Amino acid sequence: MAGKKVLIVYAHQEPRSFNGSLKKVAEEELSRQGCTVAVSDLYSMNFEPRATRKDITGVCSNPEFFSYGVEAYEACKKRTLARDIIDEQKKVQEADLVIFQFPLYWFSVPAILKGWMDRVLCQGFAFDIPGFYDSGFLKGKLGLLSLTTGGTAEMYAKAGVSGDFRYFLWPLQHGTLHFCGFKVLAPQINFAPEFASEEERKGMVASWAQRLKTIWTEEPINCTPPWYFGQ
Amino acid sequence: MAGKKVLIVYAHQEPRSFNGSLKKVAEEELSRQGCTVAVSDLYSMNFEPRATRKDITGVCSNPEFFSYGVEAYEACKKRTLARDIIDEQKKVQEADLVIFQFPLYWFSVPAILKGWMDRVLCQGFAFDIPGFYDSGFLKGKLGLLSLTTGGTAEMYAKAGVSGDFRYFLWPLQHGTLHFCGFKVLAPQINFAPEFASEEERKGMVASWAQRLKTIWTEEPINCTPPWYFGQ
Repeated sequence: MAGKKVLIVYAHQEPRSFNGSLKKVAEEELSRQGCTVAVSDLYSMNFEPRATRKDITGVCSNPEFFSYGVEAYEACKKRTLARDIIDEQKKVQEADLVIFQFPLYWFSVPAILKGWMDRVLCQGFAFDIPGFYDSGFLKGKLGLLSLTTGGTAEMYAKAGVSGDFRYFLWPLQHGTLHFCGFKVLAPQINFAPEFASEEERKGMVASWAQRLKTIWTEEPINCTPPWYFGQ
Repeated sequence: MAGKKVLIVYAHQEPRSFNGSLKKVAEEELSRQGCTVAVSDLYSMNFEPRATRKDITGVCSNPEFFSYGVEAYEACKKRTLARDIIDEQKKVQEADLVIFQFPLYWFSVPAILKGWMDRVLCQGFAFDIPGFYDSGFLKGKLGLLSLTTGGTAEMYAKAGVSGDFRYFLWPLQHGTLHFCGFKVLAPQINFAPEFASEEERKGMVASWAQRLKTIWTEEPINCTPPWYFGQ
């Protein structure tokens, strides 16, 4: 939809990868629609994943005892967070939709993207206490996880060895996105692209582009335990 | 138990923190028992969390197209993984028990520790295809998550806003530790130590030390969906 702003937070090392193709068609389709699209290509940026004292540029509020959460909150309010964090927060602030594009590593995001979540979504910016879940500061924004897996769809079925894929979405969709106020759109999951043929992969990329044509008309999921774990 | 080897993988920035105290009493109690205790203090080591080409010291198996999983697997077999990964793998290989000590960040491990999992537990070392879950290469070892939360126990009750705490354990205990063959001991969870008094925190530290006295007699949990999500 023209006028909408999208941020794609992308975590793959290889531009020619399947994740890279998904990122690329999203950029192209959304731009074609007239959206403004920003991309944070984390590996290209060599994005810092570790939450450390270096994230606070001024004097710490307690120089004797470093508590990351407390110091990041204070720095956020005083605008003394590190430049890379402030830059990402600006992109998030402007976005109507944030798409996370990544391969699943250990039922979760790769560490470089975990670090983006740890450092960018700080208290004072993405939430406060109180001011979380439905009162999170990023309410009004849409979030969407577009991910690929090594394991097959079968492995991620309810009775499969890896359990229902919805189980691993909980910390990301509910614990993180919903906590910050996002409305969560259904995940885009491409299972085991490495086992698919080149043709099948092209089909998956095309399906994603097709979905994005009507993304702005989608209803968010009901991001509470029944969606994940049943009644 | 004398003769046993323990590795503590520790992820907190402040030695005087509650996490630091938990790590310290674990080292002391286990050493007192006659165990060999190694500690990977990730922030002190400035441990690299990002999975990149730099993790392979030789020539990549496919220089035209970088697939981290494939290249790490090949390098593992050829013993050309980066030195820091090899050092960690040696510690894991020797350990009978691996304790992970960390504050919960976004229902998961801090990114620096996620990076330890992503880079150290590679195919060829921790698992193979096939050779995972009960056939994972680290079978025979015990794994234990000792974590602290910002949220209260109430928030992490089944009907609480953050859902049952067991839900967030799934990717870590099942998707990662069980996948690699570990038997998983019950997690040690200290909820909201920041809201507790100094006395209460001392009590929590003492409980942990007390538990460790009989850690070698504990039965692992049944690390399958019913434990997490009920029948």
